[in-house]
Amino acid sequence: MPRKCQLRLALAQVNTCVGDLVGNSDLVVEWTRRAVQSGAHVVAFPEMALTGYPVEDLALRESFATASRQALDALATRLAEAGCGDIVAIVGYLDRDAAGPRNSAAVLHEGRVVARYHKHHLPNYGVFDEFRYFVPGDELPILRVHGVDVGVVICEDIWQDGGPVAALGVAGVDLVMCINASPYERNKDDVRGPLVAGRAAEARAPMAYVNLVGAQDELVFDGDSLIVGPAGELMARVPQFVEQLLVTDVDLPVGGHTTTGRVGGFDVRRIVVSAEPLARYEPLPVPPRAEPLPDAEEVWSALVTGLRDYVHKNGFKSVVLGLSGGIDSAVTAALAVDALGPHAVHGVSMPSEYSSEHSRSDAAELARRTGINFQVQAVADQVRVFVEQLGLTGLAEENIQARCRGMTLMALSNQHGHLVLATGNKTELAVGYSTIYGDAVGGFAPIKDVPKTLVWQLARWRNAEAEKRGETPPIPENSITKPPSAELRPGQVDQDSLPDYMLLDDVLDDYVEGDRGFADLIEAGFEPELVQRVLRMVDRSEYKRRQYPPGTKITFKAFGRDWRLPITNAWREHQVGS
Amino acid sequence: MPRKCQLRLALAQVNTCVGDLVGNSDLVVEWTRRAVQSGAHVVAFPEMALTGYPVEDLALRESFATASRQALDALATRLAEAGCGDIVAIVGYLDRDAAGPRNSAAVLHEGRVVARYHKHHLPNYGVFDEFRYFVPGDELPILRVHGVDVGVVICEDIWQDGGPVAALGVAGVDLVMCINASPYERNKDDVRGPLVAGRAAEARAPMAYVNLVGAQDELVFDGDSLIVGPAGELMARVPQFVEQLLVTDVDLPVGGHTTTGRVGGFDVRRIVVSAEPLARYEPLPVPPRAEPLPDAEEVWSALVTGLRDYVHKNGFKSVVLGLSGGIDSAVTAALAVDALGPHAVHGVSMPSEYSSEHSRSDAAELARRTGINFQVQAVADQVRVFVEQLGLTGLAEENIQARCRGMTLMALSNQHGHLVLATGNKTELAVGYSTIYGDAVGGFAPIKDVPKTLVWQLARWRNAEAEKRGETPPIPENSITKPPSAELRPGQVDQDSLPDYMLLDDVLDDYVEGDRGFADLIEAGFEPELVQRVLRMVDRSEYKRRQYPPGTKITFKAFGRDWRLPITNAWREHQVGS
Repeated sequence: MPRKCQLRLALAQVNTCVGDLVGNSDLVVEWTRRAVQSGAHVVAFPEMALTGYPVEDLALRESFATASRQALDALATRLAEAGCGDIVAIVGYLDRDAAGPRNSAAVLHEGRVVARYHKHHLPNYGVFDEFRYFVPGDELPILRVHGVDVGVVICEDIWQDGGPVAALGVAGVDLVMCINASPYERNKDDVRGPLVAGRAAEARAPMAYVNLVGAQDELVFDGDSLIVGPAGELMARVPQFVEQLLVTDVDLPVGGHTTTGRVGGFDVRRIVVSAEPLARYEPLPVPPRAEPLPDAEEVWSALVTGLRDYVHKNGFKSVVLGLSGGIDSAVTAALAVDALGPHAVHGVSMPSEYSSEHSRSDAAELARRTGINFQVQAVADQVRVFVEQLGLTGLAEENIQARCRGMTLMALSNQHGHLVLATGNKTELAVGYSTIYGDAVGGFAPIKDVPKTLVWQLARWRNAEAEKRGETPPIPENSITKPPSAELRPGQVDQDSLPDYMLLDDVLDDYVEGDRGFADLIEAGFEPELVQRVLRMVDRSEYKRRQYPPGTKITFKAFGRDWRLPITNAWREHQVGS
Repeated sequence: MPRKCQLRLALAQVNTCVGDLVGNSDLVVEWTRRAVQSGAHVVAFPEMALTGYPVEDLALRESFATASRQALDALATRLAEAGCGDIVAIVGYLDRDAAGPRNSAAVLHEGRVVARYHKHHLPNYGVFDEFRYFVPGDELPILRVHGVDVGVVICEDIWQDGGPVAALGVAGVDLVMCINASPYERNKDDVRGPLVAGRAAEARAPMAYVNLVGAQDELVFDGDSLIVGPAGELMARVPQFVEQLLVTDVDLPVGGHTTTGRVGGFDVRRIVVSAEPLARYEPLPVPPRAEPLPDAEEVWSALVTGLRDYVHKNGFKSVVLGLSGGIDSAVTAALAVDALGPHAVHGVSMPSEYSSEHSRSDAAELARRTGINFQVQAVADQVRVFVEQLGLTGLAEENIQARCRGMTLMALSNQHGHLVLATGNKTELAVGYSTIYGDAVGGFAPIKDVPKTLVWQLARWRNAEAEKRGETPPIPENSITKPPSAELRPGQVDQDSLPDYMLLDDVLDDYVEGDRGFADLIEAGFEPELVQRVLRMVDRSEYKRRQYPPGTKITFKAFGRDWRLPITNAWREHQVGS
């Protein structure tokens, strides 16, 4: 009959910053101290916690890899000096050896690095380019901690069949720690739980999964750290989008495993940190199991996180954006208020000759409801000089209005140090319904990956939330209900140029996210003319997409850097049907 | 004693267009016809000739892969119908099977695809992302053509040790055809010849190397196709940057090789197209061996090619650019004239309050010398409205001038259909010495990857070339010799803000291209203060770099998409020394 051993685990779901070796080291020390205060025996930090994730081409700079290794050694020393030498700390970092850069986990104990594991499966799809950066590892250290045999794996290692988890199952292990930097995508939490459960079964041991939280450039990490038992049962789960230390006791049957050497393509080594089981102790109460957030709240939280971290991690304190009275700028402003507070948000109404009365009153009403800073800066005079001097008509005249607004925002940014937010949504970006150097101006585009129909849903959800809490709904009802218009010529509405947004978003979702082709879309029941029209717009908008500012990704295949299409592209899907 | 067999090879160094399956098919038919007319027995086209290169995420769309396969089958039929069924045509294309997308070479003969080879080594560094797109192949068809055993490999296959060339050497082959889409980088031709020679030795057979020519987005392909004998001797070489059909006879000892099955990790198959050697015939005269171009001419040609193909392949007929009287806009204009002719180039002088007299006269002089279209559009009135209305001072006032110029160019673009060229050089882009939405405005930035000191060298070279040919040197002497200035405030010159350009370019080259760290640069003899100052500027300019328009790459590690640094990056190399 197998013996049972206790162990107190701490999972540190923290928000690191790329490149900030000093700040991230401080953070590891601080959270390890908290873990020690909670009586934990093992604490795990996310993938690349020491360097931040993703480091992109910094991984290839020898000086950065050297700095990372030095910071790791210094961290081990600091932890011991801070009275945290007893705890086993698992910390992700960038390593580099003769073979090249490694995405690694270090095990720190009593002032030393007692083991290193190099990530085996390197993701190279979607937003990931890890084949570019890292050399895969095939060594598999297993640690004995208070009699419990603990394996360590990293993120993609559990998303691919075969590999280190299977090898751990064969070699024998009592617990698997998986450290992650797994970006948020919509409904990803539906996949993560079952995936971790399946791997736990494969390892024939519980799996503790700790994920990064916070945002880095366009990526958002939702946390969602959890522990699953070998039969797939959820033992603990942390709320999404917040830093949190999950401390929980496990009471495990231990196998006294001894297999070493070559297993399933890996070199298994066993490192004894502490052989003796702990004396039986009173476990902590079982921590509450957080539920994943409902869809709209989850997306809203991702957008708020993405915006807040982009602004702060890039050293800005405030943002400025144009308020047109429309739904996109209203939702962007509401997100900014939730991310930064109303005093850090500066809204500017910039009417031109063609602006409606409601464009001004709805913008003012939004400012009143949210308490943000507000000013009116008409662009009519500037537009007139350009139009008359250059003899502009048609599209050229329409665009110069949007561009004088962009110039106004950038001038206010330069004069007062605000980051400019672009307010474009994914639908208009996809079809090219925006003005480059105009409404596309900005350092960050919070709703760049939010389709128009979802913008409306989010607005309604946020207003309803406010009502639930007895607060003023931030978004004026009129901004939600009126027909969308760019107001760049008299009486213009979006549907002069675009199909109905419900239909448009349906086609875009199938074409872009679903990778479905022309014939496939027709078969799915869309009108051929509609499909042809939409695909033509998407295929021609690639050039604009390249110059669009970064924005929070809420799905995996966002526009921009991870839908990598050539600019020059003579292949048009819609031609297949014509 | 081995028998010798003759064979007439044609290498089609052609300019394909990404996605243009119809146009590329036409091109293959046309050049195959020319090869047949020259009496060739084998004709080879570049890597991915049918789809263009690089197709990026188009490779992942099933509908595109299906279209590519269908276009290949149709091409085989068309070639036979056009009387080109006898010749063996080797054509690069996108394949897709159960394992996924493949970067493949098809062998077409008598209306059928008689063999397919899937690229084995997939490059995933610098500008390459082939692990993202393709599944590597491990089948190695060897064709017997008129008694000669011919192996086929693709590009990166010869840049890595081991792999298909080594296997061909072991299995036995009489000739290797290597089809390529190998992007231009400065001095790459110095590497290519010896590399091909080494692989030919490894295969113990001559190697024919055919490369793409022309530009695709930011990449330029210089051609430089060549044939090397098994002892490393150069047998033929095509001029760079031009489409050309190299037709040459080889007279080879043939081995009657028979090895099949597993060799060096590959499945070797032998396919007999025609077993009988040709009756002895009179070979063509040996074609001239083109010399690689001298450095300045090679760079100039790459930039002209990059500009011309970007403009034309994206459907533009003309370009517009701002002429400041300075060296960058003068060189950009001269490149545009060489690429498109003077009538397709529109120069605009846009003086503001702070513009010097010579900024206007030098711009006008450039226009006079080159014969381009020229107009003056002052921006003083627009600038005044912005400055007074928004109370702009300092940097905000400087930037609004550059931005009113950008708006003017975009308005002229919208009104008249020109593509806007941005005139920024690599040095200012690297250190962030440019105005986003100002002088960075444009659809293409021809000298984006040219350091400032090289801009001057190119100007001098181009003027000297003109003099040699008895033509008017395009670039006014004063634009070359005067101290560079942005003229955004009274008396401003670049060296108020930047180190001397010679020194600056030296540091940048070591830091960016050479990946050298702070300590390393100090050790190399640079002043610590200078290094710290330059590195700080580079590390902080990443955000601008992300929104810079594409431009021709003349070195491998250009700024932009292939120096992939995080935007949020708290690691500053210069802090290591501070």
